[in-house]
Amino acid sequence: MPPAIITLTTDFGLSDHFVGVMKGVILGILPEARVVDITHQINPYEIAEGAFVIAEAYRWFPKKTVHVVVVDPGVGTLRRPILAEAAGQYFVAPDNGVLSMLYAREKHKVRAVTAEKFFLKPVSDTFHGRDVFAPTAAHLAKGTPAARFGKPIAEYCRLEFYKPVRTGKRVWKGAILKVDRFGNLITNFHIAEFPVLRTRAFAMTAGQREITALARTFGEQALGELFLLVGSSGYLEVAANQGSAAKMTGAAVGAPVELTIY
Amino acid sequence: MPPAIITLTTDFGLSDHFVGVMKGVILGILPEARVVDITHQINPYEIAEGAFVIAEAYRWFPKKTVHVVVVDPGVGTLRRPILAEAAGQYFVAPDNGVLSMLYAREKHKVRAVTAEKFFLKPVSDTFHGRDVFAPTAAHLAKGTPAARFGKPIAEYCRLEFYKPVRTGKRVWKGAILKVDRFGNLITNFHIAEFPVLRTRAFAMTAGQREITALARTFGEQALGELFLLVGSSGYLEVAANQGSAAKMTGAAVGAPVELTIY
Amino acid sequence: MPPAIITLTTDFGLSDHFVGVMKGVILGILPEARVVDITHQINPYEIAEGAFVIAEAYRWFPKKTVHVVVVDPGVGTLRRPILAEAAGQYFVAPDNGVLSMLYAREKHKVRAVTAEKFFLKPVSDTFHGRDVFAPTAAHLAKGTPAARFGKPIAEYCRLEFYKPVRTGKRVWKGAILKVDRFGNLITNFHIAEFPVLRTRAFAMTAGQREITALARTFGEQALGELFLLVGSSGYLEVAANQGSAAKMTGAAVGAPVELTIY
Repeated sequence: MPPAIITLTTDFGLSDHFVGVMKGVILGILPEARVVDITHQINPYEIAEGAFVIAEAYRWFPKKTVHVVVVDPGVGTLRRPILAEAAGQYFVAPDNGVLSMLYAREKHKVRAVTAEKFFLKPVSDTFHGRDVFAPTAAHLAKGTPAARFGKPIAEYCRLEFYKPVRTGKRVWKGAILKVDRFGNLITNFHIAEFPVLRTRAFAMTAGQREITALARTFGEQALGELFLLVGSSGYLEVAANQGSAAKMTGAAVGAPVELTIY
Repeated sequence: MPPAIITLTTDFGLSDHFVGVMKGVILGILPEARVVDITHQINPYEIAEGAFVIAEAYRWFPKKTVHVVVVDPGVGTLRRPILAEAAGQYFVAPDNGVLSMLYAREKHKVRAVTAEKFFLKPVSDTFHGRDVFAPTAAHLAKGTPAARFGKPIAEYCRLEFYKPVRTGKRVWKGAILKVDRFGNLITNFHIAEFPVLRTRAFAMTAGQREITALARTFGEQALGELFLLVGSSGYLEVAANQGSAAKMTGAAVGAPVELTIY
Repeated sequence: MPPAIITLTTDFGLSDHFVGVMKGVILGILPEARVVDITHQINPYEIAEGAFVIAEAYRWFPKKTVHVVVVDPGVGTLRRPILAEAAGQYFVAPDNGVLSMLYAREKHKVRAVTAEKFFLKPVSDTFHGRDVFAPTAAHLAKGTPAARFGKPIAEYCRLEFYKPVRTGKRVWKGAILKVDRFGNLITNFHIAEFPVLRTRAFAMTAGQREITALARTFGEQALGELFLLVGSSGYLEVAANQGSAAKMTGAAVGAPVELTIY
């Protein structure tokens, strides 16, 4: 048996002890677990960004990986913890829509996690990452069957932030899902739904700027020029060759983007 | 035998090779070690912040975990390396007070680490994390008995930054131990010592602002309002629902906080 | 057999899923691998900084460690992936000079990585860290002989940014390789080549300031004073006792530094 893999995606940042403590809890239950950080730099409470990140990441992990996703503005209130099964992997998260982009891509089954015996007691009001999600993930990775954590549910939170909306005959309105380290703006326009961009003239407005070119690689554009790129995710990214599209456009996570096809 | 766990808490940040190098040294001595980052974002030289972070983190790790804490403004001078045993775990650190909050909570034994044979040679003047603390921790985690690293000592550095001071009949003066990722201000007022806040009127001043409410969860307050919260640590935190208390008050790590109980 | 170690050095940052995905790919191929982050905070596209960081880090790792270095402004263009063998370890990187400081220190053999059967297919235009470098490193760490990845080559990219240039009888011009977390400016002047600084008067200009003192430790200087220090790397660093030399001088990565010896 290869060692179990547990990934963590949170908005906890790295300057506190929170992430380390989650790992301590996991290793206390399953010392052999391999814990992999996806990122802890989701912008605080940005559920759409968390949904994008985990949906991009999971497919590159082996079957049976357990993904923990904690972007949880409602911690301490009544929102449920859930356990989703999809693509042969597991996802432990609050039921607030943070798995919506996974649901859109994969057949899935969702359970409400009600088996409190796996939680750390007393469960705090502010840190379910430690008390609920980490121990649930560790017991799951240790081999406890998913069915032991709670019953399947048919109603759970799905959000539609991942889809552009058509607002005119040739016009779509979308949003920026993520700003990456290089300042590239990852939009919710997917090349599979807009293959026409490869052959037709278009204009995309993002922040203060209009982009009219689609490039194949960073290298082929002039330094500092804005262009669209099909990112490794398939989503269209507003990019600049060795420059920051975020700075050049003034646009941030959640900002609107408008596409017109000519 | 489960694999040995070694945690790292430093002010080295993540943009240099320092943390990676410490892990290389550890894995060279004990390839099976599980190395867990608590945080490397302690503010440079902020001993009180380091003391708070390790004191919050250790209890969530299994027995025999070895915690390495390197916040060390005196590196290269005469301060000693120490090895503390407490709560069935080990703590390797400079003797500069960074374990004070651990000492306040747990029965403990402190040794001066004098067994230079475990150090990397030559010991540099600037990077004891690599040359002294990492190899000491790895040999300890590998099974070398604590007594082999040095003799117990009775005099070691304890600082009292973790306790508010009474300055009037109904007035206490404390400090901010930590600003977390969300901008919450973690004070050194612990609910166990101030349970009266649950039932009596009070005012806490932090930076430019006065806080008069104690909330149970983030969810129950209006957006952007300042309030006190009992953090997952038991310490009172100045928080704002989906906002940054640090920005709203202008207060930072080390800033004074004053509590008046009516 | 101890578990294989794979290190990662990139300019991907930690706010995206990129690093986590590389680890997923590695663990999918070699579940037992120990993956260690050196840093992911190389400034975007700063090849010299990446070259410095890996050259400082590798020597602290055990034999047979596989180091992956991805600072790759030319991703998607024709630059080759390479596999270097040096110091009993392996280095997988783009052929853009990012291993130059390693070449300068160690006997080495360089291969062009042409064995596409180890790559993830289809290879994307933008994320060779995932599709090329991670799987190559994992298969290498798993025991595939280096020769199976491609033939040795004699022509590969070497850059000379790591050496100061003599510009006058007593004057050398160098550069800042790295700004560390504490704001220390790591220059490309190495004490082994400039031992004279220990005994002769000198002046080094960095940004707006002139530095004329060489100190042995941080502790011996007055607070906030600028001085030179022999860093743990052997390179001279412009430092300030408990202050940021970067802020005090206004100098950043790549900035020129001039040394005059009297």
